[in-house]
Amino acid sequence: MLTMQDALARLTAYWSGQGCLVVQPMNTEVGAGTLNPATFLRVLGPEPWRTVYVEPSVRPDDSRYGENPNRLQTHTQLQVILKPEPGNPQELYLGSLSALGIDVAAHDVRFVEDNWTSPALGAWGLGWEVWLDGLEITQFTYFQQAGGVNLDPPAVEITYGIERIIMALQDVRHFKEIAYAPGVSYGEVFGQSEYEMSRYYLDDADVAANRQLLELYAAEAQRMIDAGLPVPAHTYVLKCSHAFNVLDSRGAVSTSERAAEFARMRRMAGEVARLWVARREELGHPLGVVEPTPAATAPAVTPAGGSAPRQLVFEIGTEEMPPAEARTAREQVRRELTERLAATRLAHGAIRVLANPRRLVAVVDAVAAREEDHVRTVKGPKAGAAFTADGQPTPALLGFARSQKVEVDALERVDFNGVEHLAVLRPEAGRDATEVLGDVLAKVVTSLRSAKNMRWNDPNLAFTRPVRWLLALWGDQVVPVAVSSLASDRQTRVHRNAPAPTIPVASAEAHLGILADAGIVVDPDERRRLIVAGAERLAAEAGGRLDVDAERSLIDQILYLVEQPTPLLGRFDESYLRLPEAILVNVMRKHQRYLPVRDAQGGLMPYFVAVANGAVDADLVRAGNEAVLRARYEDAAFFYRADLKVPLVEMRERISRLTFTDKLGSMADRSDRIAELARVLAAALDLDPADTATLHRAAALVKFDLGSQLVTEMTSLAGVMARDYALHAGESEAVAQAVYEAELPRSAGDALPRTLPGALLSLADRLDLVAGLAATVGLPTGSSDPFAVRRAFLGLLAVHRAHPELAGLSLTEALAAAARRQPVPVAESVLTGAAEFLTRRLEQLLTEEGQPVDRVRAVLPHAERPGLADRLLAQIDALVKEEQFRSLAEAIQRARRIVPAGTAAGYRPEALVEPAELRLHEVLTQVRDALPPEPDLERFNEVAGAITGPVNSFFDEVFVMTDDLDLRAARLGLLATVRDLGADLLDWEHLRM
Amino acid sequence: MLTMQDALARLTAYWSGQGCLVVQPMNTEVGAGTLNPATFLRVLGPEPWRTVYVEPSVRPDDSRYGENPNRLQTHTQLQVILKPEPGNPQELYLGSLSALGIDVAAHDVRFVEDNWTSPALGAWGLGWEVWLDGLEITQFTYFQQAGGVNLDPPAVEITYGIERIIMALQDVRHFKEIAYAPGVSYGEVFGQSEYEMSRYYLDDADVAANRQLLELYAAEAQRMIDAGLPVPAHTYVLKCSHAFNVLDSRGAVSTSERAAEFARMRRMAGEVARLWVARREELGHPLGVVEPTPAATAPAVTPAGGSAPRQLVFEIGTEEMPPAEARTAREQVRRELTERLAATRLAHGAIRVLANPRRLVAVVDAVAAREEDHVRTVKGPKAGAAFTADGQPTPALLGFARSQKVEVDALERVDFNGVEHLAVLRPEAGRDATEVLGDVLAKVVTSLRSAKNMRWNDPNLAFTRPVRWLLALWGDQVVPVAVSSLASDRQTRVHRNAPAPTIPVASAEAHLGILADAGIVVDPDERRRLIVAGAERLAAEAGGRLDVDAERSLIDQILYLVEQPTPLLGRFDESYLRLPEAILVNVMRKHQRYLPVRDAQGGLMPYFVAVANGAVDADLVRAGNEAVLRARYEDAAFFYRADLKVPLVEMRERISRLTFTDKLGSMADRSDRIAELARVLAAALDLDPADTATLHRAAALVKFDLGSQLVTEMTSLAGVMARDYALHAGESEAVAQAVYEAELPRSAGDALPRTLPGALLSLADRLDLVAGLAATVGLPTGSSDPFAVRRAFLGLLAVHRAHPELAGLSLTEALAAAARRQPVPVAESVLTGAAEFLTRRLEQLLTEEGQPVDRVRAVLPHAERPGLADRLLAQIDALVKEEQFRSLAEAIQRARRIVPAGTAAGYRPEALVEPAELRLHEVLTQVRDALPPEPDLERFNEVAGAITGPVNSFFDEVFVMTDDLDLRAARLGLLATVRDLGADLLDWEHLRM
Repeated sequence: MLTMQDALARLTAYWSGQGCLVVQPMNTEVGAGTLNPATFLRVLGPEPWRTVYVEPSVRPDDSRYGENPNRLQTHTQLQVILKPEPGNPQELYLGSLSALGIDVAAHDVRFVEDNWTSPALGAWGLGWEVWLDGLEITQFTYFQQAGGVNLDPPAVEITYGIERIIMALQDVRHFKEIAYAPGVSYGEVFGQSEYEMSRYYLDDADVAANRQLLELYAAEAQRMIDAGLPVPAHTYVLKCSHAFNVLDSRGAVSTSERAAEFARMRRMAGEVARLWVARREELGHPLGVVEPTPAATAPAVTPAGGSAPRQLVFEIGTEEMPPAEARTAREQVRRELTERLAATRLAHGAIRVLANPRRLVAVVDAVAAREEDHVRTVKGPKAGAAFTADGQPTPALLGFARSQKVEVDALERVDFNGVEHLAVLRPEAGRDATEVLGDVLAKVVTSLRSAKNMRWNDPNLAFTRPVRWLLALWGDQVVPVAVSSLASDRQTRVHRNAPAPTIPVASAEAHLGILADAGIVVDPDERRRLIVAGAERLAAEAGGRLDVDAERSLIDQILYLVEQPTPLLGRFDESYLRLPEAILVNVMRKHQRYLPVRDAQGGLMPYFVAVANGAVDADLVRAGNEAVLRARYEDAAFFYRADLKVPLVEMRERISRLTFTDKLGSMADRSDRIAELARVLAAALDLDPADTATLHRAAALVKFDLGSQLVTEMTSLAGVMARDYALHAGESEAVAQAVYEAELPRSAGDALPRTLPGALLSLADRLDLVAGLAATVGLPTGSSDPFAVRRAFLGLLAVHRAHPELAGLSLTEALAAAARRQPVPVAESVLTGAAEFLTRRLEQLLTEEGQPVDRVRAVLPHAERPGLADRLLAQIDALVKEEQFRSLAEAIQRARRIVPAGTAAGYRPEALVEPAELRLHEVLTQVRDALPPEPDLERFNEVAGAITGPVNSFFDEVFVMTDDLDLRAARLGLLATVRDLGADLLDWEHLRM
Repeated sequence: MLTMQDALARLTAYWSGQGCLVVQPMNTEVGAGTLNPATFLRVLGPEPWRTVYVEPSVRPDDSRYGENPNRLQTHTQLQVILKPEPGNPQELYLGSLSALGIDVAAHDVRFVEDNWTSPALGAWGLGWEVWLDGLEITQFTYFQQAGGVNLDPPAVEITYGIERIIMALQDVRHFKEIAYAPGVSYGEVFGQSEYEMSRYYLDDADVAANRQLLELYAAEAQRMIDAGLPVPAHTYVLKCSHAFNVLDSRGAVSTSERAAEFARMRRMAGEVARLWVARREELGHPLGVVEPTPAATAPAVTPAGGSAPRQLVFEIGTEEMPPAEARTAREQVRRELTERLAATRLAHGAIRVLANPRRLVAVVDAVAAREEDHVRTVKGPKAGAAFTADGQPTPALLGFARSQKVEVDALERVDFNGVEHLAVLRPEAGRDATEVLGDVLAKVVTSLRSAKNMRWNDPNLAFTRPVRWLLALWGDQVVPVAVSSLASDRQTRVHRNAPAPTIPVASAEAHLGILADAGIVVDPDERRRLIVAGAERLAAEAGGRLDVDAERSLIDQILYLVEQPTPLLGRFDESYLRLPEAILVNVMRKHQRYLPVRDAQGGLMPYFVAVANGAVDADLVRAGNEAVLRARYEDAAFFYRADLKVPLVEMRERISRLTFTDKLGSMADRSDRIAELARVLAAALDLDPADTATLHRAAALVKFDLGSQLVTEMTSLAGVMARDYALHAGESEAVAQAVYEAELPRSAGDALPRTLPGALLSLADRLDLVAGLAATVGLPTGSSDPFAVRRAFLGLLAVHRAHPELAGLSLTEALAAAARRQPVPVAESVLTGAAEFLTRRLEQLLTEEGQPVDRVRAVLPHAERPGLADRLLAQIDALVKEEQFRSLAEAIQRARRIVPAGTAAGYRPEALVEPAELRLHEVLTQVRDALPPEPDLERFNEVAGAITGPVNSFFDEVFVMTDDLDLRAARLGLLATVRDLGADLLDWEHLRM
């Protein structure tokens, strides 16, 4: 058995063999290996740096008295830094797993998108968590920025979670059972310390003392910054960070403090980083300077063999792209390639672009061997200005001829848009396909962009993940592409663990076949078919089924996590089925990307389908995945049992420690605001006593489950667990349902609150969020919406529309009420902006639902009451089929058209003289008196229908624009009154019949 | 080349292979690996524990901005703990050197006494520094106590100084040049940190902030102690320690603070230790409990073969004893063996005991095969009380017979000191020699004691170092000895690196020959001959000579540092001869135990003789020793150059940071007191103006060189460097000489001050020391004299005696003057005690110098003026040859004998009547008037000689004890006056003619 100390020694030896310097852990408490100066400072600047070290990482918040099987206040990281990144860091990493004795070909090792950012350190990077049979064992990051300073060159940071890896390799279920050394368990060595340090961090640390420590550390850090000494300054920043963490785990950090502390640490970390960079430069970069990767030269172009069109294959090989980015990149390549080929004279057939996590493959059929020849026309002076009256060339013409290096005689007359010019005609031969394609494909690569781009060892590229190879073949010929440090060739790469991971490809036409032979499925649709069919077969074997519809978005993800989908059936212990289903499903889908298996009634079965990548050892991988799921369920069960012991009021109390945002206070503050707002909204409605009681109790509890351990772990279970815990705590079904529904809808298409109390809480929640964030962060723009404000708006509309009882509730008024409860001032303009945003969302929504644009626009004035807008739209839909309404609408429109803008309704009836206008006045007066106060198009039609005739008569008989100005004013006023009839119902202007 | 990181990896792997747990460095700053809880806490209690780890050890005081080649604020320790000690830890340790690629047979690896104690931690242990070719590479300690708690079982602590080892192995001269990893130097990795952290520790750390940190840490430590949590408490104690060290390196710790801090840390460390022990017991000792080493059984006794006497050899094998202890132990064994054998009836010849660092060997010639037979007599009742009048046995006799289980008839009459008793006579056969010897030898072992004893894995033994084997042979028979866990056999051990380190010995007679064949020299005299002869030969080869007399005490040490002396000639660069000779010689003798080589004029030559142990590779060992000496000289030169740049006043200022003792203030305080006292003493003398000026300047400087870097490193150079630096700073020769002489004499037999200013400063120094320490620590008792107070007394006597100008100076008065200047009250009884101590020392001294005891006692009343005592003794010596003085003395003694004690001198002359008494009165009156005021025995003899005749006449003619009481009183008074004549000169009572 590999002991933990042996594992550390082997990894250290492996990386040291890769040129990594072995250094010691930091001698002050740090939360992660990243904080060690061997990472945080050394990744900065142009010096090369490779290191490996162990870092006991202290996370006071993770203190569990040593009781939780998977959570420790001090866990052991093994940290590796490679700077510059060596071009093959993933392969080196896999080598380290082999060094641990892990058969990486038999296991399912995957790189699953996981980015890393530390606001307190001004640091971020892009990368993956590495999965071993579904277990996250390593964080693998291309480190991009530290202390707010761009890393140039960037570094690879590899962080192994040692306890986790060892628990898997040793197949133990509690960290204390790890064989740390021969005959000595982890618990025997570190158990007491785990307990005692947990006691300190959770219960016994003196808050006042730690606050003083924090201040003293910060002052020393600042003094050292001022003294220009980044090393001691950094040490003190780390001490700040730890003191802060201690205060935090003692629940002693207010939201304003947290914000201030983070800002201070970020600022200091930034100053330290800049100082370090400057000092290293002063010292002349003792470790030397990384040479940039040299630019590649495209392979020499060999003349095209033959003239027949051939297929073009262009493969952009990358490290594992995030699923969403792979999808976007596929579209990008398709678009770029199409457009750029169109700009050439190269004939070609269909363009297909395929993609999987590691490659984007463009296949273009029948690409001609050469561009078509053509004649290029160079425009010279107008013919009229080309010759003098006596037929001699003008200086302009002579100049043109000279510049084109032709004789004047060789110039031709050419018609340019009907105007004759002198011009040079140059016949140009089409270029060879490989030449043309070389340019085009290079541009396709350089144009690649993702939502979040990173840099690696390439001097000029930036993309979601590193591009590592280019295969470009036209027929059996390599297309010469050179992009920054990359040059094309005919090599493709298959599974990293394949006996030959790099394979030459004879011709474009052979490419997909070769990949298929190696098990690589490039077509996403094909992968989807394989996944679904495989999963359905496995589910059936277990006597169950796969709910393909419910799992669609999960399958969308999975198919970009594997190149060769290999579904495997796993099972878990039935006893876990006693846990709430939401937990089980959430863990499977969200954490593990497993497909749940259900019985005929839709009930969860103790099975799952994991989709491995490639020809793994199925039993081994299954066992691994089952162990991971068991650990996760065990963890969840641990939290669940622990949570059930905590009174709701105590959980509710805990959320005062959770920050909502810096400026908007804690989650408890937010919950308080939601509760009050919900009650205010309810007061305007006619709730029955039962609903009122439910609302009041639920409002007192709302969001309490954010204080539970389980929801802390799995935030997506917020609400679901609230319902569960509330029921267990003896709350009524109604209250439990309301606290659950307060969180609905959690995404587009999610369930909506069924009950009125739930709906009110849901609205209040979203109103609070929108009001606060609009005032502090601003409304969402473009694709950036970190706080999901857009989703909150959509939730407001959805909930309002789902509850006819709420039709009278104005969301803008409610928003103003929410704004008044914010801890920050909310400007009027913010509310106006929010109302406008709401209107636009509703407009978009209704249009997407298929409502005619004119009707949507007609009801948009009611956007603040979207339920009402719905009702009006329904009424319009019914009424437009009735002649009476159509005539009425036409009459109103007629009035609108003739009355100049700005004319106010109202007139002196005494001024009217003609019978038709007097009649109109009379009917209009009756109609206005009879109109209902509430917006109801049907009633309006019944009542106002009476004026259609008189209006039409008026137009037939009365000349509005008489010279008698008094009379003209009365007539226009009369028509303006007609125009405004129903103006509070619809924007009639938009309504088309 | 072995890089530093490889060395760490190899050592870790080696010890991990020996069952050591690999743990991480402490994640808070520590000054040594000992502080890591993996040592400090784990050595406590009965649980087994083996660990190895790297510990970057932070010593703010060692900050040198990275400039000093050998000194770093953070150096790297590799720490190993073995608990229980495995019985062969030295052998395991040698294995670790082999693992580093060091050929331990070719190199000279030695274990040189070095004990370790940390008052702040309540921790201590005994052991060695390990030398590799003269370089100290490891601290090897039997850890005995931590936090004031006895370690049971004790643990072995092995601490490697990695930078130092690597510098030697890589043969580099500055730590920055160490190849830390392939192609990367230590300086490149850690240079900037060394500079910046030095800046922090020496210049920039905020004193107020660190003081606050210290207090906050201490408060948290105490709170955690109160909460019963030793782990976080220990962490905070460590933080205290570091904060204290930072303050100290910033020069911000006053002496009272230091004392208070040490006391607080010691107390807290003790509480932490006791808490840990209690907690581990509560937890049921998760790692199990060490089983005590089982008691040994003596080998079965085989019957003695033959009856001829044979030699006895008894070898007590130990780990390397300190030289002084080995010498003492040798005496102990001789005494114990002699006495215990004498208590048996076993005939034997001469007893010889030999010894070297690893063994004590007793050789007893001609030990009989058996004890002599004898008859044991058991005494019963007196014959007179044994029978009744009618001859029947009395109950007493019957009882005795019964108790002895014999018939009354079997009793015999035996004379006991002239009284006849009834008795039982029991013939007893003498025991076999092996049986007798087994008991005797076991007791010899258990009786071994040293000045400082330690425990190891033996349950019942305690000695200066572990006893590891017993060889006991009587002729060719093993003598069965069993002592605790040790049993005797016929195995001896030779060099640890010998092909067969354990060798069987056929017979006692063969033993020394076998050892000699293996190169082991057991006879100290033989080793001395080998060392001296070898060193002389080598010195001669280099054209120089060895000053055997000057190096006697060094040779005494060396001969107990080796079993097989192998002198080697080494040389050093001549350029170092430019350094003060004291430095060069001090380094050679004290640090390296090298014998200096001198030319015919006594001048130092650039050579030295090192004495290696055993058949090493001479060239290799020579090169190693030369490198060590070079590094030491380089270091010294570095300090010397640095010191020369510092003004004297600044150096003097620095000593205010050095504590003398907790209660007696800093060295600056002491220097101030010395200066003032010296001036006061001088005022009573008749100094010429030049001496006065010299004294005043020297007094202002005295001890300033304690503030130099060189003296900080080599305290024995105090004074010598003061002279050197003073001269360099432009002080006069006289002042320089005086500051030097202030430190004289530094040991018994050392030079004494030549000049009066020097003598006064020397006296003032010693008076201050004696007064302060007598009042706070007490006078030395037994062998314990940590502050060398005894030496100070001897110094006072020596200086006083050396300077006739000082004969009138009373040391007790001067001591009272010194006492008045102490920062603590000095009780009268303390001064009395000190005076008595001084008297006893002088008495001993004079006796040892060969003065007759009677004369010594006669002059002892002048002990406070030892110079005067000397003069008187010289006068006595001259006068006793003169008849006049002898008669005078006899006359005075006669008067003394007849006058009852308590009789006061003085009488009424009018009461005298007889001519003889009147004559005596008359002469006496004249003599008394003529006596000189100063104590001068010669003058006294000249003057007082006149009374000899009258005294003798008085006794011839006058009957003193007349019944006339008045007259009798007058006569006694007259004689008492004679008696007291010269009483202030001598204690006549003691003087014998």
